[in-house]
Amino acid sequence: MNIRMIIKVLGTLLIVEAASMLPSLLVSLIYGQDDFSAFVVTIMLLLVTGLIMYSIKAPNTNLYSKDGFAIVSLGWILVSLFGALPFFLSGAIPHFADAFFESVSGFTTTGSTILREVESLPRGILFWRSFTHWIGGMGVLVLMLAVLPKAGASTFQIMKAESPGPNPDKLVPKIGQTAKILYGIYLVLTIILIVLLVIAGMPLYDSLIHALGTAGTGGFSNMNRSVGAYNNVYAEVIITVFMFIFGTNFTLHYQVLKGNWKAMFKDDEFRFYLGTMVAAIILMTINLTGTIFNSVWESLRHASFQASTIMTTTGFATTDFNLWPSFSKVILVLLMFIGASAGSTAGGLKCIRIVLLLKTIKREVIKVIHPKSVCTVKVGGRVLDDSIVSGATSYFFAYMIIFTVAILIVSLDGFDLTTTFTSVATTIGNVGPGLEMVGPVGSFADYSVLSKIVFSFVMLFGRLEILPMLILFAPSFWKKVNI
Amino acid sequence: MNIRMIIKVLGTLLIVEAASMLPSLLVSLIYGQDDFSAFVVTIMLLLVTGLIMYSIKAPNTNLYSKDGFAIVSLGWILVSLFGALPFFLSGAIPHFADAFFESVSGFTTTGSTILREVESLPRGILFWRSFTHWIGGMGVLVLMLAVLPKAGASTFQIMKAESPGPNPDKLVPKIGQTAKILYGIYLVLTIILIVLLVIAGMPLYDSLIHALGTAGTGGFSNMNRSVGAYNNVYAEVIITVFMFIFGTNFTLHYQVLKGNWKAMFKDDEFRFYLGTMVAAIILMTINLTGTIFNSVWESLRHASFQASTIMTTTGFATTDFNLWPSFSKVILVLLMFIGASAGSTAGGLKCIRIVLLLKTIKREVIKVIHPKSVCTVKVGGRVLDDSIVSGATSYFFAYMIIFTVAILIVSLDGFDLTTTFTSVATTIGNVGPGLEMVGPVGSFADYSVLSKIVFSFVMLFGRLEILPMLILFAPSFWKKVNI
Repeated sequence: MNIRMIIKVLGTLLIVEAASMLPSLLVSLIYGQDDFSAFVVTIMLLLVTGLIMYSIKAPNTNLYSKDGFAIVSLGWILVSLFGALPFFLSGAIPHFADAFFESVSGFTTTGSTILREVESLPRGILFWRSFTHWIGGMGVLVLMLAVLPKAGASTFQIMKAESPGPNPDKLVPKIGQTAKILYGIYLVLTIILIVLLVIAGMPLYDSLIHALGTAGTGGFSNMNRSVGAYNNVYAEVIITVFMFIFGTNFTLHYQVLKGNWKAMFKDDEFRFYLGTMVAAIILMTINLTGTIFNSVWESLRHASFQASTIMTTTGFATTDFNLWPSFSKVILVLLMFIGASAGSTAGGLKCIRIVLLLKTIKREVIKVIHPKSVCTVKVGGRVLDDSIVSGATSYFFAYMIIFTVAILIVSLDGFDLTTTFTSVATTIGNVGPGLEMVGPVGSFADYSVLSKIVFSFVMLFGRLEILPMLILFAPSFWKKVNI
Repeated sequence: MNIRMIIKVLGTLLIVEAASMLPSLLVSLIYGQDDFSAFVVTIMLLLVTGLIMYSIKAPNTNLYSKDGFAIVSLGWILVSLFGALPFFLSGAIPHFADAFFESVSGFTTTGSTILREVESLPRGILFWRSFTHWIGGMGVLVLMLAVLPKAGASTFQIMKAESPGPNPDKLVPKIGQTAKILYGIYLVLTIILIVLLVIAGMPLYDSLIHALGTAGTGGFSNMNRSVGAYNNVYAEVIITVFMFIFGTNFTLHYQVLKGNWKAMFKDDEFRFYLGTMVAAIILMTINLTGTIFNSVWESLRHASFQASTIMTTTGFATTDFNLWPSFSKVILVLLMFIGASAGSTAGGLKCIRIVLLLKTIKREVIKVIHPKSVCTVKVGGRVLDDSIVSGATSYFFAYMIIFTVAILIVSLDGFDLTTTFTSVATTIGNVGPGLEMVGPVGSFADYSVLSKIVFSFVMLFGRLEILPMLILFAPSFWKKVNI
């Protein structure tokens, strides 16, 4: 393992984080609230630590696969620790475990909160909270690669380890260029969203907050009642559509930009993503009409928003779906697990893996009926390599194992099973709200410190797709460390 | 597909089922209750239908893989339908959907019930209910192979499709002989258990019922409060140990009989099975002491029984674990999913698959750390074939898909999420009780007819390990049917 180079890259990352805190500092200045000094102190700490780490000499700049994984997992833990400082130092969140939870929840674009109410918080703090969604959505390391003057070929290992999905694409041969294009599309879509929300009648500051939360598919809001507080149908429709867009693979957005519209509808994952979303909306609309809402339109409005917000793992809310019938709640929990597309800002298992796993079942059936046929798994007409297929299947199992271990520990707090189950489902899927105590109007505040730390790691496991975090626990990973 | 031969084998199966009803008829005669005629009518119907089907001419006696699967899935549905007749015709269960549920629950060794109370039922009916566990545990088709004078080589396809686990073993080269050995061990163990229960002070009839339920890892009891009704520590310990024995791979019992004691402790699956059971008992004992029970011994007593009954997917109960703290309940639900060993009478995912899946995760971690190493999955020192590994991983996903689809349909009944979730978990795992409404003192009586039919199929999916049932739904399976 190339420890020196890893430390150097992590140092760079902290400097980039310091820079990413400047917009929040600005917001704090504009509103003249007392969170200003918390940002100044954190930025100074980041710069000092970052520069010391960056100054280390690394004669060998090659990064191997496992170095990439180490940078990503350690990088995310570091960035979240420093990201918690503004919450903690400003006094907005008095306990550091809580501040760390909130910071991880932000960067991993989960949007679960330990805050019982948010409207009294300083505006700079609330902005930073939502801005972490935006950076974390596309990736803190991808951001670093995008802003670095030169990103060598070996940095692909970093991007590979951070990107969600079984098989990350390079849009263009150069990594730095790919990162710039991704952040470019991301930035432009976010700006369009801000403008549309302002036009729909949302205040500018609120539009910024909700655009950041939507783009990162995060879900933090500056209102206690989330998007529901505005009771603004236009804003809801805009956010519903944009959550869906940010839950789509960015490779497809790039194809569309290049004029290749057909790519989207030829894509197996996109069709599954759209199909599942539409099916969920229709089923929930039928289930809600007459039981919760009087009109079909009202049901459709809330079913669409909730389906989109949960499946894209954003986690805003316009209504308390805790009160919905079991059938609709089951659909929402199911969407938490599925999640949106690989290569998007969303979490969950990702549609492509579900598509792939369904195809492996089909393969087993065909094996019985035609024992002598050659069985391959095809996606989009291409035969998939066995290692990608086996990677996806063992990913699914690993996801369930992390899920199970977390539930076991968290259940020690003794909350009801629905709370326990959905609080882990929503954090590992990077969604935000669960059901019962952690429902859309609830919070994670009442959990013990142990549980909050477990949730923080579960969110990181979910966002980084397990392996980068898992190898930190493998003894053989720490062997042969050359300093 | 060799339809003629399939019908012939199914006819034989019905004749064997008719014979298997004779002990219940005898019990009914002894107690002189009015369930006698129900058995006589059912046996007549079975014989007539069976003989007509058996009389069909099948010039080609070869059975291929898919024929084996068809015989198993159609055979189990047929046997369950006829097995429901005594319940229905005697008036013990007035609705046929309920009677079918109870019959499937018996044969699949689930032990879930739609009966609110059982103590008022005729003794012959209760005996048949428990006897279905015994036949279903080792396999209705294995029974047929064991009693048939000659079982050809192609009947291995039937045994392969019915046996639980990823890789069924033939104990000896001849199938009929293997089936006879298995049923021999099974019968002897059952008789020992009956004797021990009588010595422990249980009435003979009750000992028979509970021995049948234990051997098949089924869980039907003749008491409303299950094994708890006796408050007999000796009986509880005996049943706890025997549930564990019947949840062990019968290949290991055969090895032990041949004097090879070491085989058991060298076996990866057995060690996982034992280790998980012991860990669950210790954790629950700690959790229950002081919260539910005052003494460590009382906690240990109930934790051991419940861990054994749930993990072996038997489903007796000595206490209402619905009232236990969340942590212990989570452990029990987890054990429902894991289940016991392949090649035993138990359900669930089976320990060997969990071992295998854990090893695939380890393989993914090693791939990152040593990208150039050759990665294989070994169990018991042998490198496993890729098709067995991929079979196990897609089995896990298929299990979760069936689980999810069932939950979606069942949630339409609108019961709370814990009831909905555990009722499906317990039926697909062939366990018996769940939590809340379907807890150890509850029943499935209040579910709708649609849900009861779904549960019946879920139990069959679980017992037959999905594939044989799944291919019934594949259109290509029904092509090229030669009559």
